[in-house]
Amino acid sequence: MNGLQNSGVLYGVGLGPGDPELVTMKAVRLIGAAPVVAYFAKQGRESHARRIARDYLRPGCEEMPLAYPMTTERPFYQPEYIDALRGFYVESAERVAAILAQGRDVALLCEGDPMLYGSFMHIFIRLKDRFRAEICAGVSGMSGCFAAAMQPMTWGDDVLTVAPATLDEEALAERLAGADAAVIMKLGGNFPKLRRVLIRLGLAERAIYVERGTMADQKIMPFTEKGDDSAPYFSMVLCPGAGRRP
Amino acid sequence: MNGLQNSGVLYGVGLGPGDPELVTMKAVRLIGAAPVVAYFAKQGRESHARRIARDYLRPGCEEMPLAYPMTTERPFYQPEYIDALRGFYVESAERVAAILAQGRDVALLCEGDPMLYGSFMHIFIRLKDRFRAEICAGVSGMSGCFAAAMQPMTWGDDVLTVAPATLDEEALAERLAGADAAVIMKLGGNFPKLRRVLIRLGLAERAIYVERGTMADQKIMPFTEKGDDSAPYFSMVLCPGAGRRP
Repeated sequence: MNGLQNSGVLYGVGLGPGDPELVTMKAVRLIGAAPVVAYFAKQGRESHARRIARDYLRPGCEEMPLAYPMTTERPFYQPEYIDALRGFYVESAERVAAILAQGRDVALLCEGDPMLYGSFMHIFIRLKDRFRAEICAGVSGMSGCFAAAMQPMTWGDDVLTVAPATLDEEALAERLAGADAAVIMKLGGNFPKLRRVLIRLGLAERAIYVERGTMADQKIMPFTEKGDDSAPYFSMVLCPGAGRRP
Repeated sequence: MNGLQNSGVLYGVGLGPGDPELVTMKAVRLIGAAPVVAYFAKQGRESHARRIARDYLRPGCEEMPLAYPMTTERPFYQPEYIDALRGFYVESAERVAAILAQGRDVALLCEGDPMLYGSFMHIFIRLKDRFRAEICAGVSGMSGCFAAAMQPMTWGDDVLTVAPATLDEEALAERLAGADAAVIMKLGGNFPKLRRVLIRLGLAERAIYVERGTMADQKIMPFTEKGDDSAPYFSMVLCPGAGRRP
């Protein structure tokens, strides 16, 4: 427990993979009780996090959208991109801090699980030593995809490798080689690269493509049946493990 | 959708890491609606899954405990252990099948996420081609531990390695070497071996020990402060990633 005794509490609230019914009882309580609810959004679009949580918001609660400064995906190595993103996180953290300093709690909504590749983490590390914080775990995006695809993933001694497709091609191949079970996330424009890697490693035959898992418009198919290279952000590839099964 | 049109549906219901408030809205609905609720238990002990779900059971629902035939952990390579476990899963699957064949739904409770190292999977693969089934994702045990320990785990291009401590020492060291972020599960009697591996790989300094994460009696400490080798089944070691943070 850090920070000011009279300050508000920062709640990082995991919302799960997309189906509003996969929100936990605790998240529903925290969202309903928070005087201020903050969430990330793309410029000019409805926040996906807010859409999941919509039915649980208290009427009249104060909402704080945090809108990303860029609208399209750009290579991370561009210095101007990194600077813009850093500036955005610093400014967002200070907006949240200003509310906490008033003694009011903030529920910051997080798609999936807050601690896996979450934007929340960039706010949390900037505030955790100045204010009290609590994390409410959520169903991860990948757990939602396992369930939607009805795929047991790890058996017995299987090791699970979770890799972002943003890695360069050689690194991705190296990290996936010999994987018992694997989940590849952050597809988007990285899909053609991932396809080459999966074919090269002999993983394509047992891979499953899941798009918008647990949402009303989900798509699930064997990877080998995915003809095009278009894959939205909310998509993953699963390679189920084949460990021991008594 | 497989199986008999008039048969019941097998629901695999993820319950999350232990805190009953981390059960999802969907799980609460399914547990409350099911005519039969099944769960695994150790011989002569209260089922941990039932304890998490207790407040959500419909009064008067039919309960079906599935009690493991052995009370202590034994090495998996013993043929009699494998045979006993296989017999138990076959018999349990047939008990569930008998209910489904009557046209009644069964909610089979699963600690954590049903598709990660879950006992549920052994029942599911035996029934999925004979009956309709649906999986309700849950907050995984590891997500609960990330939250309880307030540890962001994966940043940017970090790869997450999830490994069971049941692997032999060389295999465990090989799989964890060079991990960006890691979670080691299934500690129990494997703790001394894991300690040797973490020290050898230089991972001990950034590792965190979490016991019964999200439960009332949770324990969280830097791995280097854990003096004894006693680690219950509901414990994990986390090695948070250190990837890019704008």
